[in-house]
Amino acid sequence: MNDSYLKFVNSPFGARLARSLGLPKPEVLRRYRADRPEFEGLVAIGAGREPRLLDALANLIASIGVTSVAHESAGLWVPLANRHGLMTGRFEPAESGSQGKLAALLFDASGIEDSSQLAPLHGFFHDTLRSLGRCGRIVVLGRPPEACASPRQWTAQRALEGFTRSLGKEARRGITANLVYVAQGAEGSVEATLRFFLSPRSAYVSGQVVRIDTGGATAPTSSAFDWSQPLAGRRAVVTGAARGIGASIASVLAAEGAHVIGIDIPSARDALDATMRQLNGTALAFDIAAPEAPAQIAAALDEQGVDIVVHNAGITKDKTIAKVAEAAWQSVIDINLSAQERIDDALLAAGILRDGGRIVGVSSISGIAGNLGQTNYAASKAGVIGRVQSMAPQLRARGITINAVAPGFIETQMTAKIPLTLREAGRRMNSMSQGGQPVDVAQTIAWLAHPGAAGVTGQVVRVCGQSLIGA
Amino acid sequence: MNDSYLKFVNSPFGARLARSLGLPKPEVLRRYRADRPEFEGLVAIGAGREPRLLDALANLIASIGVTSVAHESAGLWVPLANRHGLMTGRFEPAESGSQGKLAALLFDASGIEDSSQLAPLHGFFHDTLRSLGRCGRIVVLGRPPEACASPRQWTAQRALEGFTRSLGKEARRGITANLVYVAQGAEGSVEATLRFFLSPRSAYVSGQVVRIDTGGATAPTSSAFDWSQPLAGRRAVVTGAARGIGASIASVLAAEGAHVIGIDIPSARDALDATMRQLNGTALAFDIAAPEAPAQIAAALDEQGVDIVVHNAGITKDKTIAKVAEAAWQSVIDINLSAQERIDDALLAAGILRDGGRIVGVSSISGIAGNLGQTNYAASKAGVIGRVQSMAPQLRARGITINAVAPGFIETQMTAKIPLTLREAGRRMNSMSQGGQPVDVAQTIAWLAHPGAAGVTGQVVRVCGQSLIGA
Repeated sequence: MNDSYLKFVNSPFGARLARSLGLPKPEVLRRYRADRPEFEGLVAIGAGREPRLLDALANLIASIGVTSVAHESAGLWVPLANRHGLMTGRFEPAESGSQGKLAALLFDASGIEDSSQLAPLHGFFHDTLRSLGRCGRIVVLGRPPEACASPRQWTAQRALEGFTRSLGKEARRGITANLVYVAQGAEGSVEATLRFFLSPRSAYVSGQVVRIDTGGATAPTSSAFDWSQPLAGRRAVVTGAARGIGASIASVLAAEGAHVIGIDIPSARDALDATMRQLNGTALAFDIAAPEAPAQIAAALDEQGVDIVVHNAGITKDKTIAKVAEAAWQSVIDINLSAQERIDDALLAAGILRDGGRIVGVSSISGIAGNLGQTNYAASKAGVIGRVQSMAPQLRARGITINAVAPGFIETQMTAKIPLTLREAGRRMNSMSQGGQPVDVAQTIAWLAHPGAAGVTGQVVRVCGQSLIGA
Repeated sequence: MNDSYLKFVNSPFGARLARSLGLPKPEVLRRYRADRPEFEGLVAIGAGREPRLLDALANLIASIGVTSVAHESAGLWVPLANRHGLMTGRFEPAESGSQGKLAALLFDASGIEDSSQLAPLHGFFHDTLRSLGRCGRIVVLGRPPEACASPRQWTAQRALEGFTRSLGKEARRGITANLVYVAQGAEGSVEATLRFFLSPRSAYVSGQVVRIDTGGATAPTSSAFDWSQPLAGRRAVVTGAARGIGASIASVLAAEGAHVIGIDIPSARDALDATMRQLNGTALAFDIAAPEAPAQIAAALDEQGVDIVVHNAGITKDKTIAKVAEAAWQSVIDINLSAQERIDDALLAAGILRDGGRIVGVSSISGIAGNLGQTNYAASKAGVIGRVQSMAPQLRARGITINAVAPGFIETQMTAKIPLTLREAGRRMNSMSQGGQPVDVAQTIAWLAHPGAAGVTGQVVRVCGQSLIGA
């Protein structure tokens, strides 16, 4: 829960010592606070040939109320911004003393159709990266490779992944870099996702690749949202909500306006009650592993229905396969994976999860990369990925999205018990040189639960500060 | 080129010291040698419910001439093996002193349709893993998740990834663990791939997921191959063949019977000539970056055609984006990616690459995960992944496969120049606790070039000893 190194090197004395010894100096990440502006500062715009997303970006810039400057690669930006009634200027390079002046770098790569056309990416980031301030944001926008008309275009768009991930690894200073692929026709559905990636809400999300498609049958238009209370009137179920990451998820969803129904095991009833009381939520004490639980949960939710289901409850029983007993091994699969399947199926079959709903499963980096002593846990968390990939097409007609978040090293009571050396390695082996906070997972889930994220489905988003570890 | 730690801890004194200090002791990996049996020892067979691949496994076991033992999870194996005329027995658990007796563990998970059916994976590996000897092999077989009929089945099959990757991380002792998804109808096309994963040829390939589909129009049947000279009569082009990994690729393809045409830049002509002379190959000195190169290469190959194209040539110009000049940045993209596109297009358009051919591109872990100071290199190598994914469907009708290998830390002159601390980290941060050898990349390419690998296309196989690093 407590990264004392992070605090130390950000104290006056510690900073001096770290500098003189060449120690890593993790940045204190700027996180969302309701009492501070979510968006501020200058945003620099760059583009490749024939950019197709500048209109969408102009709408976004207008909506979040920041000022833009155009890099020379984005010659179309100034007249376009003027047509949108936006103040805008031209980017002045770092030599003229603009270090740290920029809050975000946005590059529209959507028109790049061949690997020989990638040079503007170099031009823009070469010129602007040093001017990006601490905890700045980088978003590269492209087209989903697999939907491209030609292999050349697919290849060039796919190359953006290696580029953006490398940028994330060299930017440091709490800067995030993410890649958003916008499908043709989905240009009007980018705002909720771009807001997230530009906001301090995504403080610990970097090196990720997200696709926005045209959304399900019931995708609402951007103008329909109250951006300050996007979940107002929605009912959200969160499993494992008594403590830790689950309580944080419940709290963020409630802050966004949702009525939260927290579920946890009967032995955690007191903590669950206390958490839900604070949020004006509803507490349901059920053991999700029990065979009767799905029907009981469905019955409890039947009358009012539900819009958001977050499968956060999970357990670990770490032992190498040669040592772990079958019952322990199987219980991890059952609680972390099979229970999600049973509960979703019950809620979907009875229509309790409403059309336009949201399902978010909590996976893990272990489910992506595997982990020593976690054959059971990693299998269950890889299964969660299979679940969102397999269910997404089936739920599309009802406008329901299903996605997974995959946390990396998050500071919790669980990680506080990891032996010091391993804990330090987990904390430092990522682009932020620190562990994340439960709220980072919660904010990512709140974005996926947003009514404006209708075009984001079947995806896995890591909340890991761009951990080195992967597959 | 020289891992002195690996040598030291495998000396009598070094081993004692490492043991007493608790230092990691990387295994000396067993690699393929023409003068030693490729397959030997006992193979244990396990299975989930209703396994569909046991017949294919029985054919494989018969073909490679090893003896199998059946775990209790694979009750069907003994009668089936008997029908195939195979000697077989029952697996006796570790308690009875069978430690290290097994050469490989094969688990058929193809019939698993629900996450609640995963327990036999625990049973089999719980009982057998301790009996698996040094440099042993683990292969889990399943069905491609995305082709499964139900979300439940897709989810359970996808769970195998987390399971297998975790096994690879806990097995150690030079053991590899890989997951092979066999499409329905492709049961007869598994042999080349399973031979590779059971052979010492795959010494440094672990934690990988490979799909075998029913192959292109011209997929030959297994019985058609001479397994000792599978590339006899084939012509193989290898770029960057003068030295290093390229020379090793050329050498392995030649040993498998191919006539190798090595390409390298004019300034490397002497080394290229020497390498090709040794292999009775053909040397072509071309700068692949030159605009006229594709036409020149096509002209040189036109008369006799070609069956295998390996795009190995590549350069690095590592600098952070703020520091790297545009020309340097762009040259890496051009040589590592655009040149591949231009050459392939020339060979394909003129029909010089014959039907049933093979294209293999060399990608990199940097292309998957990104890397500090490598925005150009990582973009080019991510583009190589896009290239194989985009071209595979287009080439299917002609029976041509296109795949990529993504090397991790390989001991070469290039990696020998990395500063010691970084080099040691790169060497140890994988399940083998050591760097790979050029021959490991070459053997992987030889498998993808095999006529029996017709069902493997559009894929990326890491040759990284299951590096921790990924995306």
